[in-house]
Amino acid sequence: MAEPRRGRRRQTAATGPTRKVDYHNLCNPFPAMDVFSADEIANMHDTALRMLEDLGMRVLLPEARKLFKAAGAAVDEDTLMVKIGRDIIEDALQSAPRSITCKAAQPEKDVVLELGKLVFQPASGSPHATDLERGRRPGCGRDFKELIQILNHFDCYHMLPPVVEAQDVPTNVRHYFYLETQIANSNKVPFVYARGTPQVLESFELLRDFRGLSDDAFTATPHTFTIINTNSPRTLDIPMAQGLIDFARFGQVSIVTPFTLMGAMAPITVAGAITLSHAECIAGITLTQLAKRGAPVCYGTFTSNVDMRSGAPAFGTPGHFQASLAAGQLARLLGLPWRSAAGSASNINDVQGANENQMGLWGCLMAGATVIIHAGGWLEGGLSTSYEKLVTDGEVLNMVAELCAGAKAGTDEIGFDNALTHVDPSGHFFATPQTMERYNTEFYEPVIHDYANFGTWTERGARDANTRATDVWKEIVANPKGPDVDQDRLASLHADIAKRTAAGGAEPES
Amino acid sequence: MAEPRRGRRRQTAATGPTRKVDYHNLCNPFPAMDVFSADEIANMHDTALRMLEDLGMRVLLPEARKLFKAAGAAVDEDTLMVKIGRDIIEDALQSAPRSITCKAAQPEKDVVLELGKLVFQPASGSPHATDLERGRRPGCGRDFKELIQILNHFDCYHMLPPVVEAQDVPTNVRHYFYLETQIANSNKVPFVYARGTPQVLESFELLRDFRGLSDDAFTATPHTFTIINTNSPRTLDIPMAQGLIDFARFGQVSIVTPFTLMGAMAPITVAGAITLSHAECIAGITLTQLAKRGAPVCYGTFTSNVDMRSGAPAFGTPGHFQASLAAGQLARLLGLPWRSAAGSASNINDVQGANENQMGLWGCLMAGATVIIHAGGWLEGGLSTSYEKLVTDGEVLNMVAELCAGAKAGTDEIGFDNALTHVDPSGHFFATPQTMERYNTEFYEPVIHDYANFGTWTERGARDANTRATDVWKEIVANPKGPDVDQDRLASLHADIAKRTAAGGAEPES
Repeated sequence: MAEPRRGRRRQTAATGPTRKVDYHNLCNPFPAMDVFSADEIANMHDTALRMLEDLGMRVLLPEARKLFKAAGAAVDEDTLMVKIGRDIIEDALQSAPRSITCKAAQPEKDVVLELGKLVFQPASGSPHATDLERGRRPGCGRDFKELIQILNHFDCYHMLPPVVEAQDVPTNVRHYFYLETQIANSNKVPFVYARGTPQVLESFELLRDFRGLSDDAFTATPHTFTIINTNSPRTLDIPMAQGLIDFARFGQVSIVTPFTLMGAMAPITVAGAITLSHAECIAGITLTQLAKRGAPVCYGTFTSNVDMRSGAPAFGTPGHFQASLAAGQLARLLGLPWRSAAGSASNINDVQGANENQMGLWGCLMAGATVIIHAGGWLEGGLSTSYEKLVTDGEVLNMVAELCAGAKAGTDEIGFDNALTHVDPSGHFFATPQTMERYNTEFYEPVIHDYANFGTWTERGARDANTRATDVWKEIVANPKGPDVDQDRLASLHADIAKRTAAGGAEPES
Repeated sequence: MAEPRRGRRRQTAATGPTRKVDYHNLCNPFPAMDVFSADEIANMHDTALRMLEDLGMRVLLPEARKLFKAAGAAVDEDTLMVKIGRDIIEDALQSAPRSITCKAAQPEKDVVLELGKLVFQPASGSPHATDLERGRRPGCGRDFKELIQILNHFDCYHMLPPVVEAQDVPTNVRHYFYLETQIANSNKVPFVYARGTPQVLESFELLRDFRGLSDDAFTATPHTFTIINTNSPRTLDIPMAQGLIDFARFGQVSIVTPFTLMGAMAPITVAGAITLSHAECIAGITLTQLAKRGAPVCYGTFTSNVDMRSGAPAFGTPGHFQASLAAGQLARLLGLPWRSAAGSASNINDVQGANENQMGLWGCLMAGATVIIHAGGWLEGGLSTSYEKLVTDGEVLNMVAELCAGAKAGTDEIGFDNALTHVDPSGHFFATPQTMERYNTEFYEPVIHDYANFGTWTERGARDANTRATDVWKEIVANPKGPDVDQDRLASLHADIAKRTAAGGAEPES
């Protein structure tokens, strides 16, 4: 048996085939886990229907109350309470689509939302940005742009979210900034914030025109999405209700997500909190279907627990994990695509942050979530987005994407003839035909995980994963691999925004 | 609705009921995941049988070759090759027990090994110890003792392993030191190293006498275990073969674990590496059954990949995860309890270390592993055991143990009457009957995860999880909660060891 020819192999490696795995179109390969029995889940669904029927939702937007009333709900215009019969809900749950394709700037970045698919979004909605070079600060336009560049770089992030709040951009034109920055720096599905009808409709117009679509073509297919949070318990505020109606009428996707912390704005139990979340979510879904039957809408939950000693929110906990499982069971009961969330309460990208986020992630994966939000970069329970954590969590998501690709065990892989018979006892497999054919493509190659031994690693400066992640994002931001954007359309978008800005923009609804 | 009375609640918390969850007797609640089809797994099993039949194992111990020959295997005394017919293997796989109870010092720490159970062991076999206070150093007796104290503290670690090598203890008496230190500092199931018959039989005698057992009583039930590694590919060395025979004859547990790195001492594919591992493992299991039919033995695998650019071992990779899944399918085919392993290649307890270990852990959990070794504290691919990582990984294992306990969704938990109807829209659940009853017991309370907000955390010194873990282990080592050990028996053990030491001890076999 010849000694392994490492030198030659390394040389070949530089020019040989490279590993290619599709990190974008993922199907969830993990078996779904149930935390409750089918009877218990049926009881939770029934209790949610009873809540909506007997207790009702407080709906602050007159137009939304009008839609519910027209469908037969009991509306009290003094208390703003809307009691929704189960027939109305059940009808809406039937008309909500089971599969939704969201169009990206290029078809290969389109995203399909349906049970069984797996879509990742990073940290969303953080007021602060943080990185090891510049520390923690209020999010600004520069941060938003850099983070979109980083997200565009990693194939494992599939949709763009409001990854950080650009607090230095005036609120009347911030929606322009978000849309233009996403379009200019990424070809992935962009978000539009549901901050009131004026901003939403302007964003739709800008995106429609940039993509060169007619009104009808734009409305016929989802090109963007938003996250709708109820004000738990049982309140739907004005901008959120407008968002549900506007996105539905214009054929764009609402991801309806009550954010319920067990023991605070939700019952202390997983079963109680998810029952409340479910009720609020199906009420929101119903509003979309009343606004436009068949409108694209995604079921959602984000439920974790508070620390009962301090009242602080906790993430990546056993309760968070079980809440995801329960929501998954309810989503499967409805047959709808659904979102869940990972996340971390840690104040920095440390071992706590890593362990919490991955624990939350596995809860979502085993719950069969279609879209997993906050899957990377989310610290402080959403108060900051970490540049480094986007990279280190991205490594985990890459590995999950690799698992989605599966493995083969045919004759060549088992390798009796091309590997096992070639090596004597205590020998090595470096030079078997099987190894020679595959050494360059068989294994996942990490972004920041370092396999150097202690001596070599020490000589190289004993740099931890977080520090190495800084190198990675700095390189991306210094040399962003931007998408191939039509520069004329971009110029035209820019001119349209300038005109609208001169006209005063549009303030958000509160 | 009254404001939450946080002050009163906190006061009550100090004297109220506390959360009690059994972290010791775990059943795996996670659905098993298959990476290969049933046909592919059958082919792998068949190929392993064909390897043992046609290619054979090199067996260095004459007594082992004699046992194989007596059973009908074709033995070549020149090449030391043993070709084992599938009838011999299949017979042995039938007689190996499906369920094994390992006796601890106290019955509540007994461990049951069978499919469906879940047992954690921490880092095992490391030459170095490391912590943030004293840095990385060759493992010594003090380290071994301190680490056993830390392991005894955490209920989520169920069996004691050779957590670090006590390199300052002379090799002829090191087996005494290991046994006495385990017995004096923990009531959990202790290990005995298979470093040759003399050390093994002495360890059995010492443990038998300490537990006040007759020879027959000791042999009738497992009181200790060892890990058996083959020298992959296809070699069984002298101390390992002696271990298999000695542990079998004395009714103690061998965990047979080929350590196969894909692309190095094993085929580069998951299917090939696991086929090789399977062949070696069932050959080892067969030897135990030839030594004593019905002897307790555990199937095992530890397979990951090397980095093909450097040849360095990698852990917590997609390949590692899939290898665990494949081994789980083979173990279920046999019906035997089995071990797998988590672990990390990182040089320190950083985000890489956390993410690798948890990724490897989920592979084992979804593979249905009975015993998960290196589930905490294992760095550098096993070259060092980290004090802090035992604590931070222990937090993850605690949360997995919490998930094993499940959740309820009865009428009280769904809470229509005791929670949901009590809170108005946009209110809170702090004071519902359901919350008041459960606030002290509903949620897992973390060991080192910190939920303080950024301001408070900064005021407290901005200490990361790793630094906080240092506080935890230092407190344990300063004030160890040792087990209730019979001091007379301990004195008697000590005297016996002194006598044996004076007589020269026993050198390990090589």
